[in-house]
Amino acid sequence: MKTIIQTVKGTREFYPPEMAIRSWLYSVIRKVSESFGYQEYDGPFLEKIDLYAAKSGEELVKEQAFVFPDRGGELIALRPELTPSLARMVAQRQGELAFPLRWWSFGPFWRYERPQKGRTREFFQWNIDLIGTSSPECDAELVTICAAFFQAVGLTTEQVGIQVNNRRLMDSALANLGIPTDLRPAVFKFIDRRDKMRPVDWDAFGLELGLSPNQMEGLKALLEDTELWKQSDELVRFFEAMDAMGLSAYAHFDASIIRGLEYYTGTVFEARELSQEGRAILGGGHYDNLVADVGGDPLPGVGFAMGDVMIQIVLEQYGLIPPYQSATAPVLVTIFDETRQILPIRLASAFRSAGLGVILYPEPAKLPKQFKYADRIGVRFVVIVGPDEELAGQVTIKDLMLREQATIPQGEAAGWIKGRLAQAHSL
Amino acid sequence: MKTIIQTVKGTREFYPPEMAIRSWLYSVIRKVSESFGYQEYDGPFLEKIDLYAAKSGEELVKEQAFVFPDRGGELIALRPELTPSLARMVAQRQGELAFPLRWWSFGPFWRYERPQKGRTREFFQWNIDLIGTSSPECDAELVTICAAFFQAVGLTTEQVGIQVNNRRLMDSALANLGIPTDLRPAVFKFIDRRDKMRPVDWDAFGLELGLSPNQMEGLKALLEDTELWKQSDELVRFFEAMDAMGLSAYAHFDASIIRGLEYYTGTVFEARELSQEGRAILGGGHYDNLVADVGGDPLPGVGFAMGDVMIQIVLEQYGLIPPYQSATAPVLVTIFDETRQILPIRLASAFRSAGLGVILYPEPAKLPKQFKYADRIGVRFVVIVGPDEELAGQVTIKDLMLREQATIPQGEAAGWIKGRLAQAHSL
Repeated sequence: MKTIIQTVKGTREFYPPEMAIRSWLYSVIRKVSESFGYQEYDGPFLEKIDLYAAKSGEELVKEQAFVFPDRGGELIALRPELTPSLARMVAQRQGELAFPLRWWSFGPFWRYERPQKGRTREFFQWNIDLIGTSSPECDAELVTICAAFFQAVGLTTEQVGIQVNNRRLMDSALANLGIPTDLRPAVFKFIDRRDKMRPVDWDAFGLELGLSPNQMEGLKALLEDTELWKQSDELVRFFEAMDAMGLSAYAHFDASIIRGLEYYTGTVFEARELSQEGRAILGGGHYDNLVADVGGDPLPGVGFAMGDVMIQIVLEQYGLIPPYQSATAPVLVTIFDETRQILPIRLASAFRSAGLGVILYPEPAKLPKQFKYADRIGVRFVVIVGPDEELAGQVTIKDLMLREQATIPQGEAAGWIKGRLAQAHSL
Repeated sequence: MKTIIQTVKGTREFYPPEMAIRSWLYSVIRKVSESFGYQEYDGPFLEKIDLYAAKSGEELVKEQAFVFPDRGGELIALRPELTPSLARMVAQRQGELAFPLRWWSFGPFWRYERPQKGRTREFFQWNIDLIGTSSPECDAELVTICAAFFQAVGLTTEQVGIQVNNRRLMDSALANLGIPTDLRPAVFKFIDRRDKMRPVDWDAFGLELGLSPNQMEGLKALLEDTELWKQSDELVRFFEAMDAMGLSAYAHFDASIIRGLEYYTGTVFEARELSQEGRAILGGGHYDNLVADVGGDPLPGVGFAMGDVMIQIVLEQYGLIPPYQSATAPVLVTIFDETRQILPIRLASAFRSAGLGVILYPEPAKLPKQFKYADRIGVRFVVIVGPDEELAGQVTIKDLMLREQATIPQGEAAGWIKGRLAQAHSL
């Protein structure tokens, strides 16, 4: 026996049970996105490295992305994120598109990371953006969409929360502490590091950065201040809109949320699972100019991205993954013997024409074997046409769920099954 | 203004209108596949080159696929096809899976081809396989699925056809012409080349291969023989099952269909558009051992693959792409002025809770501007809450399709809209 070639590190295989989860996530994401009027789009999966280098520098892209030379020698990246492609697509048609744009996408991305719990090198990501306006009400819409997704998958406000802050608010708060403009980007990164360092190391790091002991005290008080948002007109309007949108119980102000990217300029947010692990589920925020790196007229917006790996871990943790339905069709039509192979095929086709999903057993076999298969794949109805049924123009149908069976005319069989399925749906 | 970084050659951007087509194709493929009881699965998008090299040789993979070294030096390929990943997935769990397997998938693939009409380097492909049995009725099921897909998208038997042949039949027909065993693989390839060469060149090529003038005459007669299938028990059963499955009008015997891959061992088929261009839409066939190259016990099956690019060209040619619905939600809620921003937000949320998709205008603006936006994005209903409506607890709703409007209590608005939408659906 040959050796089986293994998968590439950090990639996943989707057997039908795993694929059912991915497709379910995609369908919930579609439903939520479309209920707010967002249109689905997608960029290419391969892009020139220059598209990302403009934003992050070529070295960083080479370090974090899968990059390889094209046959012409040009460097190509497997897309590590969607925003640069989105920016190009918008900039290319800036004069034709009807703003504000509401666009969403769900597709594959690749990052060269050490595979670990919650991180794979090949993953799927939901991206959603509202582009072309700057109102705090738009920021609230995006955070509400995030909350509506949590509600749709069954995650409660006890299980997940969305922490919200505002970069402009933090900028003026740092100014009030006497932290000069040129030091503030470093202090933003310093704040962002706080939950990843030991307190004593964090303190030392702050002093090293050039913050005075007074400024350190002030900064700590700031980060604990749950009322700070009232000093921001944007956040006051944001939370007022959140309340009107009806899902504000998911959102909380948190002055320690900064988001790493300099790209964000206003309100920023992160969703986390609320148990001790505190897994980060998604992040997003308001930006001033989506198309800054690709040309085009300045264009503000707000958006977020959610990977499929961490949300699945959280959903599993809370038992919220829907049970796997192995059968995609409710009916198995059996083949009694070699001389009775055509009638079952005809029946299966008639059932499909009546709108029923049907699995046809592929060849004659002993009935117990066919029933065992029905059990394993999880169909509810098994249809049999033996010599007696054939002679009488009938079929026997076994309902494996209710453990009943009936022998009825062939022409009535599809209706009989559909009637029972309709009952199940109305229970 | 900076230069916009262009897309990589052979990749596509999916703006909402193009994405709507891709999603529609995916949804029809899902519906057809599931109506026959097939389960969705997917492999990784990155695979080690060795996975493909076992089947096609490393040089061919390097020539036809996107291949790059991993940081460990190992060669990785962007998957050019799904079958090797499928074979591994099945071989890995051969003892656990319930056979026959019915699996389908729709996802991205990459091939290093010269971009041309109908060919891109990054494309999507439907793969579907029935694995674990060898009956001609299974071959008929796959061809029927292909026909059911054509029927579902509106392609008629005048517009597309599925040409069917059988490798074993052809092998014995070549034997009858006195063509020795070791020459037959070359003759299969020679037959496959016929419609790509000038007749005179093809004739010369045949003699060069070592075929006698008599054998050439015999071969040509064979390729025109529309009754040849009657000599194959498999094809007799195949066409009998096709008739019982109800869509046999799409399928025809054609002795010139061979399929390039040696992997196929029995019945083979190709679907083509029937106008003069005769574009090839999909191809597939029966194989004896899916897992031959990856180990595991011999496993027969039948399957086909269809790319998204050519089928779209054919659908466009016949005007069968569904009209683009730019609005994903039927309702636009306007913002009258800055002091009246919260009530529209509340209304939009109430509408969504009632199951309506709603687009909220993102900021106060002159009403004509908001109506122009409604027109451009294609919503049907526009909801207005001005000072009079606010005072009276009412809303004004304009139905842009029927060119009517009504001013009604806010609590009745969602029901009013849903009633009109239900009428539209029942027309």
